[in-house]
Amino acid sequence: MAKLVQSKIAYGGDYNPEQWPRDVWDEDVRMFELANIDIATVGVFSWVKHQPNEETYTFEWMDEVLNHLHNHGIRACLATGTAAHPAWMAKKYPDILRVDFAGRKHNFGQRHNSCPNSPTYRKFSVALAEKLAERYKDHPALAVWHISNEYGGACYCDNCAREFRVWVKNRYHTIDRLNEVWNTAFWGHTFTDWDEVVPPNLLSEHMSESQPTRTAFQGISLDYSRFMSDSILACYRLEYDAIRKHTPNIPITTNLMGTFKPLDYFEWAKYMDIVSWDNYPAYDTPPSQVAFRHDLMRGLKHGQSFMLMEQTPSQQNWQPYNSLKRPGVMRLQSYQAVAHGADTVMFFQLRRSRGACEKFHGAVIEHVGHEDTRVFQETAQLGHELKQLGDRLLEARTKASVGILFDWANWWAVEYSSGPSVDLKYVSEVTKYYEALYNEHISVDVIGKETDFSQYDIVIAPVLYMVTQQDAEKIRAYVKNGGKFITTFFSGIVDEHDLVHLGGYPGPLRDVLGIWSEEIDALPPNKHNQIVVQEADGRFQGTYDCFMLYDRIHSEGAEVLAVYGDDFYRGEPVITRNQFGQGFAYYVASSPDDRFLRDFLRVICEKSSIQSLIQASEKVEATLREKDGQAYLTVLNHSSEPQAVTLLAGRGTDALSGRVVEGSFVAEPYGVYIIQLKII
Amino acid sequence: MAKLVQSKIAYGGDYNPEQWPRDVWDEDVRMFELANIDIATVGVFSWVKHQPNEETYTFEWMDEVLNHLHNHGIRACLATGTAAHPAWMAKKYPDILRVDFAGRKHNFGQRHNSCPNSPTYRKFSVALAEKLAERYKDHPALAVWHISNEYGGACYCDNCAREFRVWVKNRYHTIDRLNEVWNTAFWGHTFTDWDEVVPPNLLSEHMSESQPTRTAFQGISLDYSRFMSDSILACYRLEYDAIRKHTPNIPITTNLMGTFKPLDYFEWAKYMDIVSWDNYPAYDTPPSQVAFRHDLMRGLKHGQSFMLMEQTPSQQNWQPYNSLKRPGVMRLQSYQAVAHGADTVMFFQLRRSRGACEKFHGAVIEHVGHEDTRVFQETAQLGHELKQLGDRLLEARTKASVGILFDWANWWAVEYSSGPSVDLKYVSEVTKYYEALYNEHISVDVIGKETDFSQYDIVIAPVLYMVTQQDAEKIRAYVKNGGKFITTFFSGIVDEHDLVHLGGYPGPLRDVLGIWSEEIDALPPNKHNQIVVQEADGRFQGTYDCFMLYDRIHSEGAEVLAVYGDDFYRGEPVITRNQFGQGFAYYVASSPDDRFLRDFLRVICEKSSIQSLIQASEKVEATLREKDGQAYLTVLNHSSEPQAVTLLAGRGTDALSGRVVEGSFVAEPYGVYIIQLKII
Amino acid sequence: MAKLVQSKIAYGGDYNPEQWPRDVWDEDVRMFELANIDIATVGVFSWVKHQPNEETYTFEWMDEVLNHLHNHGIRACLATGTAAHPAWMAKKYPDILRVDFAGRKHNFGQRHNSCPNSPTYRKFSVALAEKLAERYKDHPALAVWHISNEYGGACYCDNCAREFRVWVKNRYHTIDRLNEVWNTAFWGHTFTDWDEVVPPNLLSEHMSESQPTRTAFQGISLDYSRFMSDSILACYRLEYDAIRKHTPNIPITTNLMGTFKPLDYFEWAKYMDIVSWDNYPAYDTPPSQVAFRHDLMRGLKHGQSFMLMEQTPSQQNWQPYNSLKRPGVMRLQSYQAVAHGADTVMFFQLRRSRGACEKFHGAVIEHVGHEDTRVFQETAQLGHELKQLGDRLLEARTKASVGILFDWANWWAVEYSSGPSVDLKYVSEVTKYYEALYNEHISVDVIGKETDFSQYDIVIAPVLYMVTQQDAEKIRAYVKNGGKFITTFFSGIVDEHDLVHLGGYPGPLRDVLGIWSEEIDALPPNKHNQIVVQEADGRFQGTYDCFMLYDRIHSEGAEVLAVYGDDFYRGEPVITRNQFGQGFAYYVASSPDDRFLRDFLRVICEKSSIQSLIQASEKVEATLREKDGQAYLTVLNHSSEPQAVTLLAGRGTDALSGRVVEGSFVAEPYGVYIIQLKII
Repeated sequence: MAKLVQSKIAYGGDYNPEQWPRDVWDEDVRMFELANIDIATVGVFSWVKHQPNEETYTFEWMDEVLNHLHNHGIRACLATGTAAHPAWMAKKYPDILRVDFAGRKHNFGQRHNSCPNSPTYRKFSVALAEKLAERYKDHPALAVWHISNEYGGACYCDNCAREFRVWVKNRYHTIDRLNEVWNTAFWGHTFTDWDEVVPPNLLSEHMSESQPTRTAFQGISLDYSRFMSDSILACYRLEYDAIRKHTPNIPITTNLMGTFKPLDYFEWAKYMDIVSWDNYPAYDTPPSQVAFRHDLMRGLKHGQSFMLMEQTPSQQNWQPYNSLKRPGVMRLQSYQAVAHGADTVMFFQLRRSRGACEKFHGAVIEHVGHEDTRVFQETAQLGHELKQLGDRLLEARTKASVGILFDWANWWAVEYSSGPSVDLKYVSEVTKYYEALYNEHISVDVIGKETDFSQYDIVIAPVLYMVTQQDAEKIRAYVKNGGKFITTFFSGIVDEHDLVHLGGYPGPLRDVLGIWSEEIDALPPNKHNQIVVQEADGRFQGTYDCFMLYDRIHSEGAEVLAVYGDDFYRGEPVITRNQFGQGFAYYVASSPDDRFLRDFLRVICEKSSIQSLIQASEKVEATLREKDGQAYLTVLNHSSEPQAVTLLAGRGTDALSGRVVEGSFVAEPYGVYIIQLKII
Repeated sequence: MAKLVQSKIAYGGDYNPEQWPRDVWDEDVRMFELANIDIATVGVFSWVKHQPNEETYTFEWMDEVLNHLHNHGIRACLATGTAAHPAWMAKKYPDILRVDFAGRKHNFGQRHNSCPNSPTYRKFSVALAEKLAERYKDHPALAVWHISNEYGGACYCDNCAREFRVWVKNRYHTIDRLNEVWNTAFWGHTFTDWDEVVPPNLLSEHMSESQPTRTAFQGISLDYSRFMSDSILACYRLEYDAIRKHTPNIPITTNLMGTFKPLDYFEWAKYMDIVSWDNYPAYDTPPSQVAFRHDLMRGLKHGQSFMLMEQTPSQQNWQPYNSLKRPGVMRLQSYQAVAHGADTVMFFQLRRSRGACEKFHGAVIEHVGHEDTRVFQETAQLGHELKQLGDRLLEARTKASVGILFDWANWWAVEYSSGPSVDLKYVSEVTKYYEALYNEHISVDVIGKETDFSQYDIVIAPVLYMVTQQDAEKIRAYVKNGGKFITTFFSGIVDEHDLVHLGGYPGPLRDVLGIWSEEIDALPPNKHNQIVVQEADGRFQGTYDCFMLYDRIHSEGAEVLAVYGDDFYRGEPVITRNQFGQGFAYYVASSPDDRFLRDFLRVICEKSSIQSLIQASEKVEATLREKDGQAYLTVLNHSSEPQAVTLLAGRGTDALSGRVVEGSFVAEPYGVYIIQLKII
Repeated sequence: MAKLVQSKIAYGGDYNPEQWPRDVWDEDVRMFELANIDIATVGVFSWVKHQPNEETYTFEWMDEVLNHLHNHGIRACLATGTAAHPAWMAKKYPDILRVDFAGRKHNFGQRHNSCPNSPTYRKFSVALAEKLAERYKDHPALAVWHISNEYGGACYCDNCAREFRVWVKNRYHTIDRLNEVWNTAFWGHTFTDWDEVVPPNLLSEHMSESQPTRTAFQGISLDYSRFMSDSILACYRLEYDAIRKHTPNIPITTNLMGTFKPLDYFEWAKYMDIVSWDNYPAYDTPPSQVAFRHDLMRGLKHGQSFMLMEQTPSQQNWQPYNSLKRPGVMRLQSYQAVAHGADTVMFFQLRRSRGACEKFHGAVIEHVGHEDTRVFQETAQLGHELKQLGDRLLEARTKASVGILFDWANWWAVEYSSGPSVDLKYVSEVTKYYEALYNEHISVDVIGKETDFSQYDIVIAPVLYMVTQQDAEKIRAYVKNGGKFITTFFSGIVDEHDLVHLGGYPGPLRDVLGIWSEEIDALPPNKHNQIVVQEADGRFQGTYDCFMLYDRIHSEGAEVLAVYGDDFYRGEPVITRNQFGQGFAYYVASSPDDRFLRDFLRVICEKSSIQSLIQASEKVEATLREKDGQAYLTVLNHSSEPQAVTLLAGRGTDALSGRVVEGSFVAEPYGVYIIQLKII
């Protein structure tokens, strides 16, 4: 696949010169140079500028933009601009307009507003992408392609209904098979003809506007989620193919959005040369959550470096409370991205818009227009540092011994479930495990079902509700060969169609886990139970709290590590470990408190000789990227107070300050240290 | 009317063999026999299975089901299956699809999804019911008919609009009368032609999606509620008539849902041979609320035994938190139903579905498929007990001296009211009175406006907002002849059209109550007042809290039992008693705390020599059913702790344990005692 | 302009005799006379009564009503009745029906339900108004015209879309200019033809049903707000013109609603002979808020007396909790209106309706129908007092030295803003300043952008987000000439198109304020900062809290009066004062606590020799109206406790009691004193 050619961490962001008079462009590049900005994303919303009517293309302005950037040493991340259709197109071809979840046909407005199955949209978007590729394929500024923007949004129009029928027919071939996998005998929903199938929305199988996941038929809704992810991916791929044939060596991406539910990014990443994503934590998002999203994005292409395509230099506009990033925090978050695998640091946006809904979103160049702002000064300082840093971290790899499984179809299915508890949220359960390891400063990969498990000592798959026979076989083989596998309550319940594995939970994982889960209790938030750890494990003991769901499990060979402390299942197993071949499979039958997870995972990691990168409080983050025999330990202090840090492996030189770091040191408030390690 | 023939409490539930391969059916009956299951409800959602297209009926599979059941001694509750139309019908005849409150035409999906005024729906549903009756009228397994399922849901389509106009024309005859009863002179809504009338929904008289009872015209909305209840009842009756002519001796029912607002069940019950209902308390529903619903269902047909058609053996799936029923609780709740008049104990469902939204709803046979589960063992144990119990309680009657009035039209009208307080909820106010007597272990009948009051010493009618002249006459006669009548604030305000009785509240009840209510104060939840009880009554005194609404009343002959303790109406009457003929009429001018109601009602009961069945804490429930000179006192301990119980009348033998019970005893956690009394 | 002729404060209210039989009308006037009622608003919802079909007008009943009133000495406020169209019209001409924000076409129902751009609505409403004017122009009862009722509500139908295109074309002339002012280059929304413009609603630029102000394009939404206010005003003006030509000397009004967001009442008031409004405080509305609304209504026509068109005698029906007005409170609130400039005291309504949604709204004649009610007695007592009061306060003027700016377009723009904080509400910020002065008993005028500032010593313009160059010039001139101008954070940001003033906030106010606001921090409600007042001002010092938004400002000449006490901008300016010409301009960079505002404004008032009217607690309100050399100091005790009051200027005679008041006295609970002052 084509690679992003770079000799340093690319630095820049979204740039919309079409919103400004020509004379502003000169001022722009003057300031870009002050900040060592060397990449600009252009054309993201330029469709109508490129194509003011069906017959006419007007690329001359973009010629000038690209030449202008190139003349000032700035490379282009060139967008195809197909994320918002032109007003004239909406008027002339209403089939491009979406029908929403409530069945309402929309008018022209907003963005990400096209029906993905509209033939008109597909024809015009691909034509534009191809014309751009033809025109700029040899432009010296062209560094990377940016297809559309933040893809998302579902449609329920008649076009989509028609294509959905084609999709299910291709998948299931016969109407009998369709009825079987959707279990339509329930409530007498048996289809006798493909044409009877309608999209599952508020006018059909879904029950509540405020709870859009409440569906009468999980199988239908799940397949529609797959179909929509596929439909939108098809739009992307059509543009990709149109571009690829003209520029085989320029990498192509589209900017993803972290834990964005509607699109199965593991599937998408297969068709992206490089992953890029937009990182917008709220004022109260814990750093561990941001770290998780970075690791997820890195995991999409199995550890390959990604692009930080967007972040705000300071303020957002669409949060309820859009606080400024405190001095140093933008730098800190930029290095956090790099520490997790980003090879670019890019902003939305380089110059703030004058009007419309993002005018209060931060930008490198603020409305005041000059460089004497806190935000610009911090941006320029970071630009200077990144230049100094050179190519040191480019394409460096993270080596983790722990993999945490994340699966989109599982996410959809878990949250479409009617019962046992409305509080069950897939991402929350996954990130609880992630955070326990993050707090221990242990490196983690976030992996998909198709990832090779054998590279990990430990694989954690929280709430692995949806398990196919093939999945189970893979897990079984992994454990048999010595792997440690950890899963939880509400796992192994259904197959890929959301049909329950009959014969006892956790279905095809029952033998590898050595347990049978008889029933699943669900209690309201004001109730909880305890995990009473037996001494059996010898490493930790005591009583912890657990919440939400409570599997009543029976050991079928597994060792009982802990029992419930309360309720009618007091004394019954809650944590088990089953030896299976050379490995072990653990079952966590309820949702534990953080303290338990930390103790529990620490013991397992210690047994696998997996070590913490540093010793420090939970407010300090550490990652390790390796490249050409060099290891870069990044230490990030996310607090506004100094924090003590002890290196556990080696000493080294901080690439930012040039100072030698060894043993213990005090990390400054919002301090960043990129320590080129010497192992001692 | 046809009766359910039975020699013991029928035990079983919903059974959907069409969701399973044929070989599973054999396993099903094996397990049914283990649990002494002797009744199965079949065909509830089998329309498309019976009729895969307009021309074809395919009953052979049902022949096999019924024969199979019969061969294993299991009787059938045979459903007509018309609660969810087939997909082919929705596609071919879109007039069967509902238009919702927001005016949106729905597509195929969910269930209870047919427009009740669709000629297509009526034609096809009746045809199916009749064909089933013809085919199975002589089948030996046939025990009872089950029409449709959990009727409900309103429609606002053009068909309904047209039929609504017919309905109002039949009711009011002239457009002038229509304008008068709906008070259309207000806001100039005067109709000059029937065709101007449109259904009252979010697109016409209703103001808020989140508060669907906010209407500009109560009269129109109230009549539409009546019309919808009538329209849906008409669907039921058409099926009833089609079946009745073929099987005059098989009872016909449809499963009701307790305090289900949209349908006036007192009206419905007139057309049901036996009442049946589905009991689904949430994890935090107080037992007294469940008791109330049972008594309401029993009251629909004036004390006749009813069927417990559905309950879950353990877990539900559609609650926010679907807790397991604790060991013993399913048994306890089953006997609670029996204690209140159920002659069947039935579950939804016998075998758990593999897919779709109810797969996490509990069932007798769980996904694991075998009998070694807690749930199955408890089910089987209860089956054994019910067999032992034999015919002892069948058709036994509850004899109550207190009747609590419940009226659907009043419910609708109270909650359509704009002002005085959004917190006023009819069921809450009624059940406050019920609960006070429940806690005193005093038997209560829940009665309708058409019930004969003279059989009760006390009739309580909380928030009897809607009172016709005829209603008032009945109450007046009841009190005159010695009855004790208790009503509250916000009573006697309007007639059946929601038109205010001019001349002073409580309108036609003013003389019998001996008071005039001048104005009604409404205060927010953080404010309250006091009920200061005078010594006049001699039996209890002190100060209690009261809430929400505060009538400012003047005695016009009534004795003042208590006065307000606060605010500008401090010292004014809040509780009055009026002697009227041989009886007394009480007025409670505000919503009192529980402590007041208990003391207040105890004194009145004592004066009427109405005694508690037992002496015990509020966690213990007691009921009495009588039959053939035998009295069965059921004592239910709803707590997980032992509870002391003292019998107040007689001693007897516990029909479950065979032990003699006398005087005081300790009821076990979740314990049940059915004591065949000897009066001493 | 035509004036309301009166010799005393007119007393009466809405009267709907068409809801009652003819014999009730006699009883009505009997009771009106008991209460000294001398004005009745008739015909408010009488369209269908006047015009039962397209061809027929039936005014005979109104002849009788007016004659009947006149015969009993009661004058008429004659309504045109066009606030709710007839049912027959909705059926025959569906173009009069509204399309709502979600794009749903409504059916007949409710009121204020006509599309303002419907040609049918305009034709028929104007025809009716004209016919009424022709018929009653010489009727001796006719005192004032009341067009429609409580105008409001937006429409998004095709008619409106078409008219909106005409409106924007008239405003912007070229499509290029349209694209510029709406900044459509953002997100590529550039229009290439006027016909591509669609109304901004949930189907186009708006993003959320629950947050209707969330728009992608503020410019479009803002212009649609203007367009809707203009469209509805056009309906009013068409009726006005039709009436005016027949009755040049009868004043014409329509009843406004205080701080009602959708209509720019400053624009409306230009076309009203006299302002009238409906005052409906909730049980928990602070008296200062009511005072603010009165002053806003008075400000619409620059101090001219207004009509209190509606208030409830006691209870409302559409609040969540509709408490009774405590004894004395209706009188108190009536005099509060008079104290702020009302020359009428009028109720909704004179006789309570029997049915529909306002039957639980209070009225002078309650459902009981007789005069022996608390409400009637209080009404009659007030009628007697007002008669005694005679013409004393009529047309008296309030003389204030402080003006607070209120601007509708600014309101719309502030709340359409995406960021920085969802908590920013324009009215709340304005009334914080109002309340600080209210609590100090200092008179205030609420003024519009077109008001002459030079009459005020101090002009306060909180959150003056939208500032044109012309606005800035006016402010600059005001300060230069010696005025004191106070503004706050989030001011001077955008022009009339919601386009940011480039070059640094507060844009064109930067020089007059002597500051630059670099960035705006927004924090969640659980965080705050401090205002640390320097001693520089010499008059007050200390530390206060501030909230929500925090401008980071730099002095460019302004004196720093206070600094932030916390966060990374601790020590940076938060309150500044800039001398500019002869005057001073103050900037308040965050939202302060009440204590700060009181201290801050008191000092500034003292410097301008602006004095309090009385000395008393915040529970006592005081106003001063002057006329013909007489000054009327009204003192209102809003509490249920006696309050000490000290007169600060003069002594006088209480026009209500006839007693001399001097120095200090104790105001009774809910007491009212109208003191005809002698200045000493």
